Amino acid sequence: MLPAEMESLLHDLATVSGREALAHFRARPSVKDKAGGRARFDPVTVADHAAEEAIRTLLAERRPHDGILGEELDDTHGSSGYRWVVDPIDGTRTYIAGLPVWGTIIGLEHGDRPVAGLFHQPFTRERFWAVDGKAWAQVEGQERIAMRTSTVRELSAATMMTTSPRIFAPEESPVYDRVEAAVQLARYGCDGYAYCMLAAGNIDLVVESGLQAFDVCGLVPIIEAAGGVFTSWTGEPAHGGGTVVAAATPELHRAALDLLNA
Amino acid sequence: MLPAEMESLLHDLATVSGREALAHFRARPSVKDKAGGRARFDPVTVADHAAEEAIRTLLAERRPHDGILGEELDDTHGSSGYRWVVDPIDGTRTYIAGLPVWGTIIGLEHGDRPVAGLFHQPFTRERFWAVDGKAWAQVEGQERIAMRTSTVRELSAATMMTTSPRIFAPEESPVYDRVEAAVQLARYGCDGYAYCMLAAGNIDLVVESGLQAFDVCGLVPIIEAAGGVFTSWTGEPAHGGGTVVAAATPELHRAALDLLNA
Repeated sequence: MLPAEMESLLHDLATVSGREALAHFRARPSVKDKAGGRARFDPVTVADHAAEEAIRTLLAERRPHDGILGEELDDTHGSSGYRWVVDPIDGTRTYIAGLPVWGTIIGLEHGDRPVAGLFHQPFTRERFWAVDGKAWAQVEGQERIAMRTSTVRELSAATMMTTSPRIFAPEESPVYDRVEAAVQLARYGCDGYAYCMLAAGNIDLVVESGLQAFDVCGLVPIIEAAGGVFTSWTGEPAHGGGTVVAAATPELHRAALDLLNA
Repeated sequence: MLPAEMESLLHDLATVSGREALAHFRARPSVKDKAGGRARFDPVTVADHAAEEAIRTLLAERRPHDGILGEELDDTHGSSGYRWVVDPIDGTRTYIAGLPVWGTIIGLEHGDRPVAGLFHQPFTRERFWAVDGKAWAQVEGQERIAMRTSTVRELSAATMMTTSPRIFAPEESPVYDRVEAAVQLARYGCDGYAYCMLAAGNIDLVVESGLQAFDVCGLVPIIEAAGGVFTSWTGEPAHGGGTVVAAATPELHRAALDLLNA
């Protein structure tokens, strides 16, 4: 069992991050190009930094001995055995475009294993989280709802999401395309929000690559607690990032892995 | 000036449609395949029908002599000179995937010219509409805000959206790709919601094809009233559907047309 104060901190971190992110949402935020050129346009907004600062300030107060890995700022090494893995605004491009499907992702690792995770979308006022093997969804002001992945076992019946069919490396692209050609419906554009839709049973499969630990660490517990399977394209643990296949059922996961490695 | 009761009817139609659509949202709706095969998976849900029925029932009461063109049901011919062009759930695939960026689109034509339009997303409780040459955005319970497109004039500074880079016909695909290669940022996945983000100044360009009148008629007045330009790929009026290029400024529109016709 995760200590109760850790679960409430998970929510409080999301709240302070969401407040900063929402303050700049749809305000044509100043965009800096991290990579320094058009070819690798990678926007970092004022909001991204402000949201991560808010998270780190609260962690320094309440859990000064925990480690922190964040997207924007330097790693903080801890001594407690716990590490927070945070993406203050997952889906920065989506955020810049004004679409309400970005979010704060917060993962909590204990001994290199993710033990809790949360995704928060403050404009829609939704939270999706997992603690102690239970996955929940909640719209602010409403009852929380237990999440459960769908029962879809075959690719031909599956709805799949990926952020973009153009995120894949040249050698990965035809491999991804094989899976897209096999599913019933493919949709694009959602980053971490797609994994929450998978946990909630609305879609059945997410296939991505090139991810960082902060993109996925907080999502792994949500998918697993909802009954899904979350690994790399080769079936290894994927909470450290890289390639990802997240599926509603073990059978669907196996079918996707088979195609990815055919 | 549009009669005041027509503007309030526009909102009432969105309200009744949104209520039906929201009742089935994220409930794994029963999906029927209009096209009858995997290759052209085109889901029509119970919600789509219920939402259009709700719109037609209200129109029959309040405007019995107006025409109606809807996505789901047979055309109604009118005698008043007004025609309502409605897509009860624009973005059915997005709706099925649980993403909160579908919406009801309602256009009002007078003498074959769109004179008012509205997009309503009931989960986020947002409305975007235009009447009498003014474009507005409103989150339920908050003040309405006048919308204005961005000032972006060059493709290299533009954020573009399209529903999917895979919606294009084989001969259109390389043409679209030229534009995508020229913009700063391209995002996918949003159907009509993307046009509202354009009107609101969050993005700068939408390029699509294969659209129907009910997909676009209600969006044209919103884009134009916000200061943007909305035509086909050849610069013709596009409220009847087909290819679409919607841009924040005349200069950006011209640059996109030039590439589309290069």
